[in-house]
Amino acid sequence: TSEIKAKEENKNLITSESVTEGHPDKICDQISDAVLDALLEEDPESRVACETAVTTGQVNVFGEITTKANVDISNVVRETLKDIGYTKAKYGFDCDTCGVSVSIDEQSPDIAMGVDGEDKNDVGAGDQGMMYGYATDETEEFMPMPIMLAHRLSRKLSEARRNGEISYLRPDGKTQVTVEYENNQPSAISNILISAQHPEEVDNETIENDLIEKIIKRNVPENLITDETEFLINPTGRFVVGGPQGDAGVTGRKIVVDTYGGIGRIGGGAFSGKDPSKVDRSAAYAARYAAKNVVAAGLANRCEVSVAYSIGVAKPVSLWVNTFGTGKVSEEKLSNWLQESFDWRPAAIIDRFELKRPIYRQTAAYGHFGRNDLNLPWEKLDMVKDLKNKESV
Amino acid sequence: TSEIKAKEENKNLITSESVTEGHPDKICDQISDAVLDALLEEDPESRVACETAVTTGQVNVFGEITTKANVDISNVVRETLKDIGYTKAKYGFDCDTCGVSVSIDEQSPDIAMGVDGEDKNDVGAGDQGMMYGYATDETEEFMPMPIMLAHRLSRKLSEARRNGEISYLRPDGKTQVTVEYENNQPSAISNILISAQHPEEVDNETIENDLIEKIIKRNVPENLITDETEFLINPTGRFVVGGPQGDAGVTGRKIVVDTYGGIGRIGGGAFSGKDPSKVDRSAAYAARYAAKNVVAAGLANRCEVSVAYSIGVAKPVSLWVNTFGTGKVSEEKLSNWLQESFDWRPAAIIDRFELKRPIYRQTAAYGHFGRNDLNLPWEKLDMVKDLKNKESV
Ligand SMILES: C[S@@+](CC[C@H](N)C(=O)[O-])C[C@H]1O[C@@H](n2cnc3c(N)ncnc32)[C@H](O)[C@@H]1O
Ligand SMILES: C[S@@+](CC[C@H](N)C(=O)[O-])C[C@H]1O[C@@H](n2cnc3c(N)ncnc32)[C@H](O)[C@@H]1O
Repeated sequence: TSEIKAKEENKNLITSESVTEGHPDKICDQISDAVLDALLEEDPESRVACETAVTTGQVNVFGEITTKANVDISNVVRETLKDIGYTKAKYGFDCDTCGVSVSIDEQSPDIAMGVDGEDKNDVGAGDQGMMYGYATDETEEFMPMPIMLAHRLSRKLSEARRNGEISYLRPDGKTQVTVEYENNQPSAISNILISAQHPEEVDNETIENDLIEKIIKRNVPENLITDETEFLINPTGRFVVGGPQGDAGVTGRKIVVDTYGGIGRIGGGAFSGKDPSKVDRSAAYAARYAAKNVVAAGLANRCEVSVAYSIGVAKPVSLWVNTFGTGKVSEEKLSNWLQESFDWRPAAIIDRFELKRPIYRQTAAYGHFGRNDLNLPWEKLDMVKDLKNKESV
Repeated sequence: TSEIKAKEENKNLITSESVTEGHPDKICDQISDAVLDALLEEDPESRVACETAVTTGQVNVFGEITTKANVDISNVVRETLKDIGYTKAKYGFDCDTCGVSVSIDEQSPDIAMGVDGEDKNDVGAGDQGMMYGYATDETEEFMPMPIMLAHRLSRKLSEARRNGEISYLRPDGKTQVTVEYENNQPSAISNILISAQHPEEVDNETIENDLIEKIIKRNVPENLITDETEFLINPTGRFVVGGPQGDAGVTGRKIVVDTYGGIGRIGGGAFSGKDPSKVDRSAAYAARYAAKNVVAAGLANRCEVSVAYSIGVAKPVSLWVNTFGTGKVSEEKLSNWLQESFDWRPAAIIDRFELKRPIYRQTAAYGHFGRNDLNLPWEKLDMVKDLKNKESV
């Protein structure tokens, strides 16, 4: 055991993981957000807390929804599964023949009381909790490199399955990347792990070869792969049983994959299935936005913004900024600037980002942050100018 | 909005939350771990991944279990609910009349393949992933103060309900504490929030008075409460509908409450319902043990230990130690010492902590770490001597 790859002088090892859209927990996140989108499409005022659970042959959708929309949830479930690629029992799930049960209640009137209102001060947070946002200048997405690489590999796995490049691949899969940092900058990759669901007939050597050549080598920066980089492909030796048949899934169980891969702190609240009156989601988006704008404005190399709310109350109970010693201005100043430049009341966040729109399903796989492939309002850099102005005063 | 309590010079605000054992997500954690315990009691080799979901009037238990034990899961569910106190529909749930459905499959043979074995090198990790452990000298439990205080308040809420001191209380509840740090030491409490489920007939003033006088003032260090400390009691104004009727619950959705309250990083894996071959649980316990022993040995004021695994492989892919600049020896040395003094292979962790025992249900509310009320093997300080010896060489 003394040969575990461990910390050396000025070097760290940071590991993050991602999963494909066919991973059971991610199936649930996507169903929950597909339901949310369908409801917001018809009624932007919908209050939604939609949970999903999947296991062999079954999907359960449950939670609290108050809406004027009229949505066939069962149909949304089947369409989402089909879209992901679960169209045959031997893939681990069959969208057409699986059982779907729906148990939806209304939002508790006692909670609604704290959230309903016209004035921005009356619209309280939909729950208590603390939310963290994080950004770093180590990648162009202002995201930690390990999670970005893990997401890229997961996404490329799905693409190769869909476009036929590695046509035997099945929907379920996981990736994990260990990045070596030297003086806090990514210097090499120490380890890449991919587990990809496959049919019985394909042998391990073929899979290993395909994944290393077509997925890893084409998508990981060459300069980070060294002679010592280790590749682990399907290390269990077999991954035929997959999807909900191999592992039950639940909404909100990939919150580290959804955020910063373990490097940025998180408050613990899940995102998927929740309308933006739930600060777990909207304030975590706002905190990411604030942190990213601080780093993009050149005010810090790394930034964490943390905010906490009380249920039923609009004004946050606390706000603080951490720059890990990389700040060009003091954390106190940044905390004040972020209060002046950004209105942290839930209704104001919803307005600013126009969050009562059906934009969530696309966030439910491959991360909610650093998504340069999408046009997400909380990834915009439109506070940079404002922050730079403050600095120059 | 400019009056949010924010960062001042040398001061931070750290917020953490906890929930009572009657919170819907925590009900699920406790059911999942009660099922796990019942299985381990009869068959220590049981492989368990037990998920639970609750919503109005219903409990679903699902997941993968391979065991020789013969357990009446439905009975375990009802007993757990009764124990928590959900014995009447008007409390939000009735253990005797609720629906219970159970959908259990066997562990995937493809996964079992990677985990089965006699030799410690053959017993691979039950999943990929990274796990973090954390410890700080700021409390006697070597835990961050905000989460410890939030847990204490939650626990005292339940005690007051059970022992009749505040007999009208109902099982559901949440707490949140914002601690002000000055030069990294807790200096004051800026905010305490409690939401406690109550019957219709009790008015807000009574509740506020009881919770402040009997719960907060008796259980929070006096010196941390100042004139500026804000108390927020049931800020929605009404919390009669509670338990699964007010909010659906799922296993593994309180992973920040289960760990370090947001301050220590986490890898994202849940604990409850998982047997110790799942490194999400066993290696997170091991990492906490290592971090705590480093701090207790006086080698750092704060310590984070991170370890990552590949599914089906015994040896971790990486290990690193972070002392946030508070270390008395280098992080490289600590990383090496933790490898010499601790065998990180899953089977070795299971042996060292004797994890194939029914000890989990008690961890499923009020935190898995810093539990000086329990006798948990991963909280022991029996590596301190070894680490001190190494230092003195
Ligand atoms: C290993 S399973 C979690 C443990 C599982 N619930 C059990 O009871 O053993 C977690 C994820 O690993 C992936 N997985 C499933 N079968 C696998 C296999 N045979 N080899 C590698 N990865 C697998 C799937 O993405 C699955 O959702
Ligand atoms: C606010 S609920 C989450 C949101 C909910 N799913 C919805 O759709 O509105 C989260 C937790 O808050 C607590 N809670 C429930 N009703 C509450 C109320 N009326 N006031 C304060 N807290 C409440 C319970 O512990 C519950 O599990």
